[in-house]
Amino acid sequence: MLDFDFYTPTKVFFGKGKQHEVGKIISDYGYKKIMLQYGKGSIKQSGLYDEIMSSLGKYDIEVVEMGGVEPNPKIEFVRDAVRLAKDMGVELVLAVGGGSVIDAAKYTALGAVSDYDIWDFVTGKEKPKSALPVGCVLTIAAAGSEMSWSAVVTDLSQNMKRGLASDLIRPLFAICNPELTYTVSPYQTACGITDIMAHTMERYFTPCDPTDITDQIAESILRAVINAAKVVMKNPCDYEARANIMWASSLSHNNLTGCGRINALPVHQLEHAVSGEYDSVAHGAGLAVLFPAWAKYVYKHNIPRFAQFARRVWDVKEPDDKKAAEAGIEAMAQFFKSIGMPSSLNEFGIDADAIQSLTNLCTFNGQRTIKSVIELGNKEIKDIFYICCK
Amino acid sequence: MLDFDFYTPTKVFFGKGKQHEVGKIISDYGYKKIMLQYGKGSIKQSGLYDEIMSSLGKYDIEVVEMGGVEPNPKIEFVRDAVRLAKDMGVELVLAVGGGSVIDAAKYTALGAVSDYDIWDFVTGKEKPKSALPVGCVLTIAAAGSEMSWSAVVTDLSQNMKRGLASDLIRPLFAICNPELTYTVSPYQTACGITDIMAHTMERYFTPCDPTDITDQIAESILRAVINAAKVVMKNPCDYEARANIMWASSLSHNNLTGCGRINALPVHQLEHAVSGEYDSVAHGAGLAVLFPAWAKYVYKHNIPRFAQFARRVWDVKEPDDKKAAEAGIEAMAQFFKSIGMPSSLNEFGIDADAIQSLTNLCTFNGQRTIKSVIELGNKEIKDIFYICCK
Repeated sequence: MLDFDFYTPTKVFFGKGKQHEVGKIISDYGYKKIMLQYGKGSIKQSGLYDEIMSSLGKYDIEVVEMGGVEPNPKIEFVRDAVRLAKDMGVELVLAVGGGSVIDAAKYTALGAVSDYDIWDFVTGKEKPKSALPVGCVLTIAAAGSEMSWSAVVTDLSQNMKRGLASDLIRPLFAICNPELTYTVSPYQTACGITDIMAHTMERYFTPCDPTDITDQIAESILRAVINAAKVVMKNPCDYEARANIMWASSLSHNNLTGCGRINALPVHQLEHAVSGEYDSVAHGAGLAVLFPAWAKYVYKHNIPRFAQFARRVWDVKEPDDKKAAEAGIEAMAQFFKSIGMPSSLNEFGIDADAIQSLTNLCTFNGQRTIKSVIELGNKEIKDIFYICCK
Repeated sequence: MLDFDFYTPTKVFFGKGKQHEVGKIISDYGYKKIMLQYGKGSIKQSGLYDEIMSSLGKYDIEVVEMGGVEPNPKIEFVRDAVRLAKDMGVELVLAVGGGSVIDAAKYTALGAVSDYDIWDFVTGKEKPKSALPVGCVLTIAAAGSEMSWSAVVTDLSQNMKRGLASDLIRPLFAICNPELTYTVSPYQTACGITDIMAHTMERYFTPCDPTDITDQIAESILRAVINAAKVVMKNPCDYEARANIMWASSLSHNNLTGCGRINALPVHQLEHAVSGEYDSVAHGAGLAVLFPAWAKYVYKHNIPRFAQFARRVWDVKEPDDKKAAEAGIEAMAQFFKSIGMPSSLNEFGIDADAIQSLTNLCTFNGQRTIKSVIELGNKEIKDIFYICCK
C-alpha cells in the first residue's frame, strides 16, 4: 500500500426531498449572497428551480443567477460568471445540476477570488491559493464532482478540454436526492453509470501492487453499480437503484478507491481529447468506447490484475488467468453495450482519419505521455484510437 | 437506503514515517501552542515521543504535556487536562496513542472551551457548542476514533463507561503510520481487530433493509481485515497487513459502513457495561465474547441477513439459510478464538453472579432498552450475558 493523504471534507446530505433543505444549510453556514448556476433550464421544467428558490427565499438568501452551463462547460461561460461573481460580491457558488454545472461552479469559485485568468490555473502557470465555497444539488449521478477535488473545462478556441485538481475546490456540501435523477434519460443514465465505473476502474488498474482493502472496496462499488444499472434501465424510478448509483458516483471519485494506489486516469485523458474535439460526444459514451479498447491494449502487461477484475467483478469462472482477463474485458464491453452505450467511435461519425488529430490533442502535440498499466506515448495512444474506430 | 448525512472532514496522512510531519502539519494549520496527550509512556520507550517532540520543535510549537491516559480513559484525567488546557491557553490537543488517548483528547477539546463539566455532555444535560481542534498520531489500529465523531469516558465513582457523539470532535487530522503498530502485542492487536470488525458488523446488522453498496463495502472491509489478521498474527511486521488493518480501523468507524442504515451499536453498549465494571477487561476482548453471544441470540429474527454475512464474509457454502447463518456465527466465534481472544466472560473471572449488576449498568437501571436486530430490554440483555458466562 503506497502512502496517501485522504481528505473528503464535503458534507453530504443524502436522501429524499433533501433539496428543500438548501436554504437552511446555506444559512447555517452563515452565507447570505450566493451565485446560483445551472444548465440549460431542465431544472425549470422539472420544478426543481422553484423548490431551490423557495428554500433560499425562506432564509433571505440573495441570489445572483447564472444559468446556461453547457455539457463540457466552456471557459467563456466561466469567465462571465467570474466577472459577475466579483461585481456582485457573492460568498458561495451553488451548482444545481451534474458534473458540468459543478465543474463550472468550481472554476467560478477559483476565479472569483483571484486576479488571474482561470486558464492559467488549468495550464499550471498559476497555482490557486483560495476559492469561494461551492455547494451543490446533484441532478445526475455520473461525474462524482460533488465530492471530488477536480474539475474540467473546455476552451473551444483551442479545441481543448483540460482539468485541474485542488483541495480548494472540494465542495463544502452536496445535496444528493436520488429522486431527482428519476427523469434522467436512459442514455444519460447509462453515460453516468459508465463514468462512475470508469472512475473506479481507472484507479483499480494503475501500475502498483494490489491493495487488498482498496481493491475490495472498488470491486464492491462496481458490483453495486452493475446490479443497480440492470434495475434502473428497466425501471428508472427505482429508488434503491438510483440511490446506489448516486452514492457510488460520490465514492468513485472522492478517492476512496484510490487510497494506497498510484492515481492516474489514463482513459479519461484519452476521452477528453475525443469530447474536447467532438463536442457532441457525451463524456460517458466516449469512455464506454475507450475503456474496453484501452483494456484490450494493455491487459497483457498485468494479466493477474485483469483476471482478478474478471472473477470478482464479472463473476468469470475461467481458471486460466489470460482467458479470464479477456473474458472480463469482454463482459465489461458487453455490459456497456447492454445499457445502450456505443462500442465504436464510428457511431459518432469519427473514423480513422481523425486519429492523428486526436492523438496530438491527447499528447499535447507530443509534449506528454500518459501513466497507465504501461506508459502511453504517441504510438500506444494511436493504436488505442485505432481499436476504437473499428 | 435510508436518508443519511456523511461528514468525514478529518485529513488523513497515511504511510511510512508520517509522524515526522506532525510539526509541519500543525504549523501549516497555524497553531503555535498545543497540548500533547499520550498513554503510560510506551511512546517514550519506542522513541516515538522523541520523534514527535523533535518535529514539533522544528516548527517552534509550544507543548503542554499531559501523559498518563489510561485504557478506558478516566474522567478525572480529563478534568485535570481541561483545567491545564484552559490555564495554558492551548489551541489544539494532539493525541499520540490509540482510542483511549484520542477519546481523552476529544473530551479535553470539548471541556477546554466550555464552563460545563464534561459529564454534563455525556449525560446530555448540556449540548456541546464548540471544541478545540484535535489531531492524532495513531499507534494502535482499533477504535477508529481517529476519524469518528464519538468518544467514551469512564467514571469509576459510578462504575460507568459512557460515550457521546458530535461532529465537533471529529479530529482535524490523523497521522496513520502502520509501522508504529509493529510493536503492538499479539493480544492487543487481536483486540483491535475485533473492535474494527465489531464497528463494521454493528452497522451491518441493524434492523433495516439491505443497502447493496454499503453492505458490499462493509463485507469488503471485513474480508480485508480477516485476511490481514491471519498474516499479522504470524508476522507482526508485515507492512501490508498492518496497513490494511489500520485503514480498516478508520473506515469502520467514520460511518462509511453505516450510510443508508440505522445506526446503533448494541454490542458496544453491552460491552461498555462489562469493561466499565471490570476495568481489566480490554474493550476488544469483551466484544469478542459478546458479539457471537449476541448474534446467537438475535439471528433468528433476521436469518437472510446472517446468511448473507456467512456466505459473503466467511465463504460459507451451505444452501440452507438458517444453517448458513449458524455456520457464519460459528466461523466468527472460531476466528476470534484463533487470534487469541476469549470466548467466555469466565476467562476474566466473571461468572453468572455478575449478570444482574451488568444488566443494570447496561439498561441504566431499567431506564433504557437497546436498538438491535430486536430491541434488547432487561430480559434479553440478561439472556445474552448468560450466554457469555457459559
